Amino acid sequence: MSKPTNTRSASTPHRTSQGNRDFRKRTQREARPAAPPQSRSVPVAGDATAQAAIILKEGREKSLLRRHPWVFSGAIERIDGTPVSGDTLQVVDAAGKFVAQAAYNAGSQITARVWSWNPEEAIDTAFFRRKIATAIAGRAGLNLAKDSSGMRLIHAESDGLPGLIVDQYGDVLVMQIGSAGIEHWRAQIADILQELCNPACIYERSDSDSRTLEGLELRCGVLRGTLPDTVEVIEHGLRFRVDVADGQKTGFYLDQRDNRKLTETLAEGRDVLNCFCYTGGFSLYALRGGAKSVLSMDASGEALHIATDNLTRNNLDESRAEWQEADVFVALRKLRDQGKTFDMIILDPPKFAPTAAFAEKAARGYKDINLLGFKLLRPGGLLFTYSCSGGISEELFQKIIAGAALDAGVDAQIVRHLHASGDHPVLLSFPEGAYLKGLLLRVAD
Amino acid sequence: MSKPTNTRSASTPHRTSQGNRDFRKRTQREARPAAPPQSRSVPVAGDATAQAAIILKEGREKSLLRRHPWVFSGAIERIDGTPVSGDTLQVVDAAGKFVAQAAYNAGSQITARVWSWNPEEAIDTAFFRRKIATAIAGRAGLNLAKDSSGMRLIHAESDGLPGLIVDQYGDVLVMQIGSAGIEHWRAQIADILQELCNPACIYERSDSDSRTLEGLELRCGVLRGTLPDTVEVIEHGLRFRVDVADGQKTGFYLDQRDNRKLTETLAEGRDVLNCFCYTGGFSLYALRGGAKSVLSMDASGEALHIATDNLTRNNLDESRAEWQEADVFVALRKLRDQGKTFDMIILDPPKFAPTAAFAEKAARGYKDINLLGFKLLRPGGLLFTYSCSGGISEELFQKIIAGAALDAGVDAQIVRHLHASGDHPVLLSFPEGAYLKGLLLRVAD
Repeated sequence: MSKPTNTRSASTPHRTSQGNRDFRKRTQREARPAAPPQSRSVPVAGDATAQAAIILKEGREKSLLRRHPWVFSGAIERIDGTPVSGDTLQVVDAAGKFVAQAAYNAGSQITARVWSWNPEEAIDTAFFRRKIATAIAGRAGLNLAKDSSGMRLIHAESDGLPGLIVDQYGDVLVMQIGSAGIEHWRAQIADILQELCNPACIYERSDSDSRTLEGLELRCGVLRGTLPDTVEVIEHGLRFRVDVADGQKTGFYLDQRDNRKLTETLAEGRDVLNCFCYTGGFSLYALRGGAKSVLSMDASGEALHIATDNLTRNNLDESRAEWQEADVFVALRKLRDQGKTFDMIILDPPKFAPTAAFAEKAARGYKDINLLGFKLLRPGGLLFTYSCSGGISEELFQKIIAGAALDAGVDAQIVRHLHASGDHPVLLSFPEGAYLKGLLLRVAD
Repeated sequence: MSKPTNTRSASTPHRTSQGNRDFRKRTQREARPAAPPQSRSVPVAGDATAQAAIILKEGREKSLLRRHPWVFSGAIERIDGTPVSGDTLQVVDAAGKFVAQAAYNAGSQITARVWSWNPEEAIDTAFFRRKIATAIAGRAGLNLAKDSSGMRLIHAESDGLPGLIVDQYGDVLVMQIGSAGIEHWRAQIADILQELCNPACIYERSDSDSRTLEGLELRCGVLRGTLPDTVEVIEHGLRFRVDVADGQKTGFYLDQRDNRKLTETLAEGRDVLNCFCYTGGFSLYALRGGAKSVLSMDASGEALHIATDNLTRNNLDESRAEWQEADVFVALRKLRDQGKTFDMIILDPPKFAPTAAFAEKAARGYKDINLLGFKLLRPGGLLFTYSCSGGISEELFQKIIAGAALDAGVDAQIVRHLHASGDHPVLLSFPEGAYLKGLLLRVAD
């Protein structure tokens, strides 16, 4: 993995194969195998070429007219002009009628991503300032990150900025770029973020695998300012160290904020098992909520190191916490064979289905760990189970879990349907944005 | 409507056609048009006939083996013995292998509803005591009705008691019976509830339309104790009068508890429109949350009378509240024609699709009011929109709302997915239990 601009004297990279839940990867799930209609050997970001245009095949403007922001390569009849990746071009239907302005990406199956439905709107620095300011103001007006110094400020397509993720951890912003369009406006966007948020640092984490699909190089490092030695997020009074440079996603799972809080309210007196615990988010909430014991597992020793550091950071009772570096699939079987049981189990695995092609394999993975989860639960026990696979719909996920319960021989009630926190909004015309889904289940007594 | 045992000196009945959101009706949506295989002219509750058995057609045991608790008439090969409605009988597959013990109902398209998957389990008073105690204990262990004196204690199929709803309002229990099986055990169940909860009153509200489909007579009235002059529920410190004898469902919409609280947190400084307001639940929360103004509409004058009484009961500022007795479909058009706009709109309509047959008509109804809602929202405004139609899936509902936004010409983000409160659990093997779905949307600036 290339990190040319990584300015931190980072230790050995420690990305957990089990914990990589990148949002941008998910958005690739509808990518089609057909080759892009016009391929360039070395696509590079260039200047906006107003004249360039994508002419759609007959009838293929429909999803765009429903305001879905992607133009797939298979929908394209031809491309007029000689745009390069990152250019803004016009998308027109087979009759030549304007449909949208979009960013071109020669290297992606998603050949263009929409900036605007308005032919008159200039796609310039002012456009991006407007979009970013709107996203920030919208969140402020909704108390979405109440009691938290961490917040997702920009949620890509759903905030009208396809391919841009910006997460805030106190006075540090982490920016993740997953499209050629945003790549083209990268410097301007950094300037705008600096101007609007005045952070101590803007750090770039453009290293998700999806960039390869987009034909973009991986890149990490400081974009503006200086990265503090320690980045911390304070959430409902709990402090978490965030490994901005090397942690999962942008360093922390902000999407689970509300669900972590819910876990705390139900932990009292319970023996808790937290699988794929990463830096201990759910574990610390459970401990503060009065859990009798919390066994936490992750495949990454480095994540566990931060987790135990977080425990100390919050003066939580270490005697109730046990940490295990393990392959969760193996460890769950071992616990089952040992006859261990728990009152509450949290299963928040990495993304099993980055694309729809992985859906069947992913379904088997979810069924496997959930079946084991059900078997390890005591009567009346609680299971928090999640999927962050865009390739697995909410309905399918529920069916998989129902199948797992059946095979485990337990009856279970859904007590709550769980989703990402509200700072991860989902554009109504882009349901793919709802990648995180979960269920709180109570098994029968 | 027959209410032979209604002991209250009730005023004119005032059931709102716009507000009838009965859970039991929903469960009829899969009812099939075929006649029951064995019809009796006057089915009455009788004694359990252990010998009686339903023999299923070849392969029709599958949904039961997945623990779905209904036996449809179309799945039945023949019935052995001479059971009467309410009897417990064995359900066996075509090869004669035991599948379940279930309550027979000759008058329903759902010919039997499962009590137990265990051939050895006695279906007797002890069985019902166990089921009821489990449901109550499960809720207590989950803090599901924290800060509320109102709680759904029994949620029918999802609590293993098909056809039984029990809602608690302080020391009053309201019981709703929607199946011949529960009808048969009615007296024993009342005794058990009296024993376990010691309420001042158990009131029966077996008057939902679904009873007609079940071949059961409508019946309302005091079952145990005495109904107090005023029944009240205190929820997050707000007091609501509950019209147990004549209000919607069992008198109050306990399912919206969490969503009402959410409304409060977002109301500050906003001009709010609450459509289908019933007795003012969302309105009062919005007022307490600091709404600048709240316009509330309902077709029922009596519901509005209780709503204004609730306002007084909570010493809330009357000057910010306006109440309108109106057909919401007409009133929304009037507001649009007057050019009125709001910062927050709540659309919690009655059930448009009691059965799947109504789904298309229902879809039009939802699209209509939501399109109007979007048009009445100011830029950056919030829409809380709900469907309690079992015939409309969550996915379909979202599509309808997306269509409405498109036609209204607005972009909108889903900020939260909304569901019934956790005291309305959904059995994993009975997804039909998830009748209430909603979205919190923010329209673009």
